[in-house]
Formats: sequence, structure tokens, C-alpha cells
Amino acid sequence: MSVVIVGSVAYDGVETPHGKADRILGGACTYISLAASFFTGVKIVGVVGDDFAREDEEFLAGRGIDLEGLERVPGKTFYWQGVYSADMNDRTTLRTDLNVFADFHPKLPESYKSAPYLVLGNIQPALQRNVRAQMNGVRLVGGDTMNYWIESYRDELLATIREWDFLLINDSEARMLSGAHNLKRAAAKILEMGPSTVVIKRGEYGAVLFRLDHHFIVPGYLLEEIFDPTGAGDSFAGGFIGYLAEKGYDLEKGHINSKELCRAVIYGSVMGSFCCERFGVDRFRTLTRAEIDARFAEFRDFTEF
Amino acid sequence: MSVVIVGSVAYDGVETPHGKADRILGGACTYISLAASFFTGVKIVGVVGDDFAREDEEFLAGRGIDLEGLERVPGKTFYWQGVYSADMNDRTTLRTDLNVFADFHPKLPESYKSAPYLVLGNIQPALQRNVRAQMNGVRLVGGDTMNYWIESYRDELLATIREWDFLLINDSEARMLSGAHNLKRAAAKILEMGPSTVVIKRGEYGAVLFRLDHHFIVPGYLLEEIFDPTGAGDSFAGGFIGYLAEKGYDLEKGHINSKELCRAVIYGSVMGSFCCERFGVDRFRTLTRAEIDARFAEFRDFTEF
Repeated sequence: MSVVIVGSVAYDGVETPHGKADRILGGACTYISLAASFFTGVKIVGVVGDDFAREDEEFLAGRGIDLEGLERVPGKTFYWQGVYSADMNDRTTLRTDLNVFADFHPKLPESYKSAPYLVLGNIQPALQRNVRAQMNGVRLVGGDTMNYWIESYRDELLATIREWDFLLINDSEARMLSGAHNLKRAAAKILEMGPSTVVIKRGEYGAVLFRLDHHFIVPGYLLEEIFDPTGAGDSFAGGFIGYLAEKGYDLEKGHINSKELCRAVIYGSVMGSFCCERFGVDRFRTLTRAEIDARFAEFRDFTEF
Repeated sequence: MSVVIVGSVAYDGVETPHGKADRILGGACTYISLAASFFTGVKIVGVVGDDFAREDEEFLAGRGIDLEGLERVPGKTFYWQGVYSADMNDRTTLRTDLNVFADFHPKLPESYKSAPYLVLGNIQPALQRNVRAQMNGVRLVGGDTMNYWIESYRDELLATIREWDFLLINDSEARMLSGAHNLKRAAAKILEMGPSTVVIKRGEYGAVLFRLDHHFIVPGYLLEEIFDPTGAGDSFAGGFIGYLAEKGYDLEKGHINSKELCRAVIYGSVMGSFCCERFGVDRFRTLTRAEIDARFAEFRDFTEF
């Protein structure tokens, strides 16, 4: 069943210890959509400038992604530039040119409004909320946020996530949002804010899914070489929602078996791990569903006892 | 089957965000032994001063630990004092008084020499090697080390671990020992140094077991309150060797089923997690095997998918 994905479509300049690439396709919406496209139909909502390359558009369309909601306006596409530390645990943003993204007011095409799944990438919380309101009878909605919105738009953010089924957030953001340092306590506080499901991402250490009645911990996949971690968290989101949508699950208690939900977390982890193997979105150009399922089996192999 | 455990028996002064305790029972040998004692017979080799309290001796003996190899000499017991950071990810050593431990030359009682299992806590590598040489027909030997020996006694350390079946080491030490930042590459290099099994401990994030043909990752147990992480790594070692000894396993290829070895890692993680729940060794005063097995089942519950 199809998923509507809203967020940034960007060009990135990335430098890691393995090399450097400039003006490569990036953005949260791009990574989430590409990862989800291996599981289910995807419809994206975003904005790009007149510099957005035809080959990038063709790549997305070639993955079966519906681009009706991708606005093209005069000006330049959102540009982000960053450099990673030697161990790749930190990154420094060198430049953020919002460009046409500064005036992004997501508007859903009619054909999107009855989609059952909605993922809201990290944008201003009021915009996320407004998109949610444009949907008719969405079954499952969730998304991401970041430190800036947590600090400076807290009330709007709380009103927004109150209507969400799931929140994907990294560990430092979970601590900031909840005010609790301990991960279990942080998750318990966030579960009181609305979402029935919280997934806390821990970078190379994996992720933890929390619900009121259980939690599930997945360690990170051990890569021998991390080329570029950009987009790994968004690719996680894409794998997670992609699997749920492929199976037609929602997150209502009783509807989804808790082990199936854990499997969605594993597929998220699988997609995040593939993302890091090449610069930018490059790994998704050659990836196959068979490789995805083989890595899923590897997760079982190295965690089962 | 019984395990000989060699290392420091100490008094610790510990300050964590949850409080402060001084001159409490500690030391690597103590933690490893207490944790292992829930699984198998334990014989310890260490040295204490004439200030070593009768009640501490009675506690160890009460856990069935053989103290014949615990030398009592004039002087003071090894004293360590440290303080943890607010998030408990760092600790600062305030004081290290080696005292009687400065002249520790472990000598095995006759009754220890034919024990099938040997764990060498973090002491000077040449001493570790000397203990190994005193054993007759040991089936399984391994232990721990630390940054100081890796940096300043590298050749001795390499000669020592060449004779070991397993090495337990934390992630930063594994990087230092191998010269590789990437965990998989670091482990591959260490496996070339002798041990057939390397367990890399990652603090709150759990541990990874590496063998030539497979690896196993266990995430850390999520505690709501970490009272005192002192000794968690040593308690891990105790649970790990304790389970192997209880079952009578060695680490020869073909002798142990890889899933059983994973279970030893889980029991290690279980014992490390319990250790953090109270100051010093206190949790081991009340812990029961039923609680241990219940937590083992919890690990299965939050990792299975």
C-alpha cells in the first residue's frame, strides 16, 4: 500500500575519510523514498529548483516513485555541505543554503490524499501538521524531527506528534525532547506525548523500539567500511515504513504482531546499513530486494542465540 | 568444572551521580569470581593486606569461592578511588595505591593446578603468562588486559595472548591493540594474534563476539538506573566463563556449538547488567540463579524477531 513521504530533496556536498563528492542527490525525502521504494509504492512531496537534474528525476521515477508532488520552481535546489570526522561519529555542517526549500509549503496532489501511510521527514512541525490535515483517513502516520525544532518550536512540535503513530528520533534528540538522560525513561516520557511507538536511533549502535508493553533492541550492522553515513537514519525510516506498508500493517494494538514490528525495525536497519556503503544514494542504484533479504537473514544470524 | 581466577582483590572508593561509597570490596578478581560463582566452582588467586576484613572474606567464602590462593601479607590492600561523570560514560581515577598488590607474584596452590579453566584478570602480561605456565593441562584460558599494557608492554602482551583461547577487551583497547579503527577489522587482526575467540565489550552498547567463521552481537541491557558501573566488564567475564565451565565447554572448533557460545556472551551481559544495579559488589549479595535465568530470557525477548 502506498506511502506519502514529505521532506527535503537536496543536493549535498559530502566529505568523509573515504573521499569527497559535491552536488550529489540527497535530502531526507529522497533517502526515505528510495529506501521505501524497495518495499512499496511511494509518492513524494517536495520542492526543487530549476537546477534539479533530469537524470536525478529519472532515477527516482525509475524506482517507481510518484513525482506528482515534487514541485519545480525557479531558483536553486536546497544545498547542504558537510564534513565528517576521522571516525565518522561527528560531522560539521559547512553550508546550508535553503534556496527554494525556504518557501516550501507542502501541498498534496489529490491522488495522494487517500494514501494509507504518511511519513513526515524533518521539516518545521507546523508544516508537518498541515500535511497530516490534508490527508483523508490516513491509517499510519509518523516521522522525524531534530534538535532545532525541539528547542525552538517545542509547542508546535508537541501538537504535531500528538497526532502521530510513531516517532523516529536519535538518542540525543530523545533526551532533549523528554528531558530524561536514561533511554528507557526518555522513551516512556515520549510515549506519553502521543505516539504509540518510538524508535530511538543510536547511529552505529543500532536502534531501540519502544511501545508501552515491550521494547526491542537491534544492534547496528558491522560494516568493514563506512563510506558515507549521510542519510542512514532516513534510509532506516524508509525501510521501516516500507515493510509496514508492504504488509499493510498499522500500529494499533492487536493489529500488528510485536515480532512483525521488530522485523520492520530490522528492515530499517538493513536499509540504513546499505546506505553507508557508498556515497550519497549510490548504493540504492544497484541494490536488489534479494540483497536486502539476505542482509535481513544476516541480522538474524548474528543476533540469535 | 572449576575455574581459577587471577587478579586484583581491592578496596574501592567510588562516586557516581547516585552516591558515594568508600573502601568497598572491589578488584577485577573479585568481580569475575563472584559472577562466575553463580555457575560453577571458583578458585581465586590474589593478594590482600592485613586490613582485609573478615566479613569480606566470609562473603567470598559464602559464595563457595575457594580462597586457598588468596595470600594475606602485611601491609594494606590495593586501593582504587574514582569518580564517574554525570552520564557515567567517563570516569576519573582519583587515586591508585597498589600497596601489597605491587609485589603480587601469583603462585598457584597445588590443588588449583589441574583445574580445566583459567581466567587472567588485568595484570602485568608476564605475570599472566607465568600463571598459565603453572597450570597442568588447562583446557581453556583467557583474560583481559588494558591500555597501559598494550602501550608499554606490547611484546610481552603479544607473547601472553598467543597462548590464550579467548581475549575480552573493550572497544578502545581493541583499536589500540590492533591499530584498526573499524571493529570488524580490529577483531580480525586480534584473531591473528592467537585467541580463537575475541569478545569486544562496548559498555552500555553491549558486546560483540568474533571468531574466524562468525560473529555475534548482543546489545546492552537497558537499565532504568545505573548505580555504579564499576566491575561490569569483569562481571561480564565471570558470567561468560562461568557458563562455559558449567557446561564443560572448551572453544575448540567443533567442540562448542556456536549458539552455546552466544549464550555464554548473554550470561556475561546478564551478570554485567546486574552488577550496575547497586554499588560495588552489592547486587551479588542477594542475586539468585532464578533472577539470572529470568534476565537471560528477557534478552531473548528484546532481541528476537
